[in-house]
Amino acid sequence: MPSEIVFDPYKDLYSKSVGLIRSSEIRDLMSVAGRSDVISLAGGLPDVTGVPTSELSSLMTRIIEDGFAEALQYGDTEGFYNLKTQLVSLMSEENIKAEEEHVLITTGSQQALDLLARIFIDPNDIIVVEGPTYVGALTAFRPAGPRFLTVPLDDEGIRTEILEEELRSLTGARPKFIYVVPNFHNPAGVTMSEERRKHLVDIATRFEVLIIEDNPYGLLRFEGDSVEPIVNRIPERVVYVGTLSKVIFPGIRVGWVLAPLPIHEKLVKIKQSADLCSSNLNQMFACAFLESGLWKKNLDELKKRYKARKDSMIEALGQYFPEGSSWTNPSGGLFIWATLEEYLDTAKMLPLAIEQKVAYVPGSAFYPDYSGKNRMRLNFSYPTVEQIQEGVKRLGKVIRREMDLYRSLGIGKK
Amino acid sequence: MPSEIVFDPYKDLYSKSVGLIRSSEIRDLMSVAGRSDVISLAGGLPDVTGVPTSELSSLMTRIIEDGFAEALQYGDTEGFYNLKTQLVSLMSEENIKAEEEHVLITTGSQQALDLLARIFIDPNDIIVVEGPTYVGALTAFRPAGPRFLTVPLDDEGIRTEILEEELRSLTGARPKFIYVVPNFHNPAGVTMSEERRKHLVDIATRFEVLIIEDNPYGLLRFEGDSVEPIVNRIPERVVYVGTLSKVIFPGIRVGWVLAPLPIHEKLVKIKQSADLCSSNLNQMFACAFLESGLWKKNLDELKKRYKARKDSMIEALGQYFPEGSSWTNPSGGLFIWATLEEYLDTAKMLPLAIEQKVAYVPGSAFYPDYSGKNRMRLNFSYPTVEQIQEGVKRLGKVIRREMDLYRSLGIGKK
Repeated sequence: MPSEIVFDPYKDLYSKSVGLIRSSEIRDLMSVAGRSDVISLAGGLPDVTGVPTSELSSLMTRIIEDGFAEALQYGDTEGFYNLKTQLVSLMSEENIKAEEEHVLITTGSQQALDLLARIFIDPNDIIVVEGPTYVGALTAFRPAGPRFLTVPLDDEGIRTEILEEELRSLTGARPKFIYVVPNFHNPAGVTMSEERRKHLVDIATRFEVLIIEDNPYGLLRFEGDSVEPIVNRIPERVVYVGTLSKVIFPGIRVGWVLAPLPIHEKLVKIKQSADLCSSNLNQMFACAFLESGLWKKNLDELKKRYKARKDSMIEALGQYFPEGSSWTNPSGGLFIWATLEEYLDTAKMLPLAIEQKVAYVPGSAFYPDYSGKNRMRLNFSYPTVEQIQEGVKRLGKVIRREMDLYRSLGIGKK
Repeated sequence: MPSEIVFDPYKDLYSKSVGLIRSSEIRDLMSVAGRSDVISLAGGLPDVTGVPTSELSSLMTRIIEDGFAEALQYGDTEGFYNLKTQLVSLMSEENIKAEEEHVLITTGSQQALDLLARIFIDPNDIIVVEGPTYVGALTAFRPAGPRFLTVPLDDEGIRTEILEEELRSLTGARPKFIYVVPNFHNPAGVTMSEERRKHLVDIATRFEVLIIEDNPYGLLRFEGDSVEPIVNRIPERVVYVGTLSKVIFPGIRVGWVLAPLPIHEKLVKIKQSADLCSSNLNQMFACAFLESGLWKKNLDELKKRYKARKDSMIEALGQYFPEGSSWTNPSGGLFIWATLEEYLDTAKMLPLAIEQKVAYVPGSAFYPDYSGKNRMRLNFSYPTVEQIQEGVKRLGKVIRREMDLYRSLGIGKK
């Protein structure tokens, strides 16, 4: 990627959407985090090093040698039917009752979010997101030009009492949807409680608002009990988004949307315009891996690794982060969300961290208005325990140094 | 896909784009064409039955066993770099001088067209297309709400003298781009002549308009001499779109865009919002197949098969189609475009054809205003020579019967 173009002879030609796109900070950071001497707590990459490669290549050999006429050809826009059946079965692991006819397979769940933005959002439409929210959702929603209504979350998920108040104050204007990540939130790591889910369903019913339930990490619970999905409670008001990226691996780009039929139909049509169909080869590969049952062993291994890394990060944070910092303690997923003293600015601090060979994502990336300046997202799924210990240690030093600087200027506690 | 939903409780929620989407007739036909007793001349499927499956599965085994850490992971939004290098080399087969930095890999070329629509088209913007034009481009462009300026083509491609006149009559309004398929046009089968290309370049320069050169079939020339690509003549005004779907196979969904840097940069950002990245696994697979050189043998075999099938179709058309019909005689690609007596309506005739177990795509699908009612697209890449003979024979009967009916009503020649 070249540096920002200053003179652009084509600038009169661009659509309004182009003015609404920002390159995500995560993306810009990826290039830095890719430098081998930097310990990256910034990414959102799952660990793929434990996959059963020889079993996978056997599955693939069978697909290519016996199934090539289908695997190498164009597929249905809706997706490979047998994979839909496998996804229905995968969803049942979280007690979701789904039917193939309601499932559209997408090119990763990012495409699902993008298609939803395209069928629902016109410029200036109101949509509700959590603060903080998934940065990929912001990237998907922004080009459509919505007004974001950001509702804060806490350890129990979205603060539904604030949501209710906000919706009431709209007096008549109805948001196009409420976007939530209820399990092991990205970036916050928190899980929406039973009580909040009930309240959210109640609000959605009374205010007649759709919910987008984005659940990439639900099956990655490594401690505690799961909470009933929102879609089970009120299927006619929920568009459910899933992905295989975290449960198996991302390189095949398989996501899906479970939606009421009229919405499903619109999504199929816009997907046809977006990329015709997702890769049959990848879909058949995913299907074979799910059918084989090998994914369960792989998932168990992932949960074991992630739990150990999360525990290690929690321990390191306690040891190395300065007083006045706090962090969430997730029961699953990939991320911990840390809050520093209010006067600190994690975006400004990032170059210092990178100088010290450690990276994270600044909190501002996760808010439509770029607030959350004293927060940061830390990933524990990709780095090893050793890297986590060393990375958090380096980061603790950077924060302390920054605090010392502020103190010397008379800001912050003595 | 369920039948059209009549009562839709969500209809107040949809964006304006949804009203602009039509399910493509091709898509609706796919389900019919999939019935095994119908000879389908309707599809646009390449023949994948000659691919070297055991070599392909060896390549894949190596990727999964040795390259899993990259193949199964998220990739760069821009695409897998080594594949870009292979695509640069593939483009050089058509004398295109490209650099990796200008290439964005997309999820099929459909995504390329979609991303271009999104960065260039606001509602009511003017875009120029050929009449007829590629139906997938219409599908990609329509949700953005452009006004289509349709310029007819003939055996030498787009009629540039009409284009020039049309642009002059816009007095100041500038189209966002001119979309052309210069080689073995879909659906028309024709190739833009040297003279027309020169005139098009001259027009683009004088009127300061961008050209989108969509070239899925360029390497599928089975007779005659190739004509220099447009992008070679005026790279700063051309966005070039390529795909591996027809040159190797579609199941991996690999397309690309070669664009001037400022446009490339916008495309990368909107792709990030659309699907983050294309499948690394598929990209590495395509890369390995291109690197191996096996693709050339495969392509030679495809050209041999397609030429035999095209020749067979031309012969069958001469034998079975009634007087007053005409058709193009392509030197490559996948399609023949037939024109029937003016009073015939191929969309209305289609159910009769399907009753006789043969399918085609009605001409109206390829025009923004659904004109071209007496035309049809016939595919010769997928059916066998036997199916082509039998299919065209059946179709000839259907057309004659329809003509007899009209004649009995006093319409058409006696």
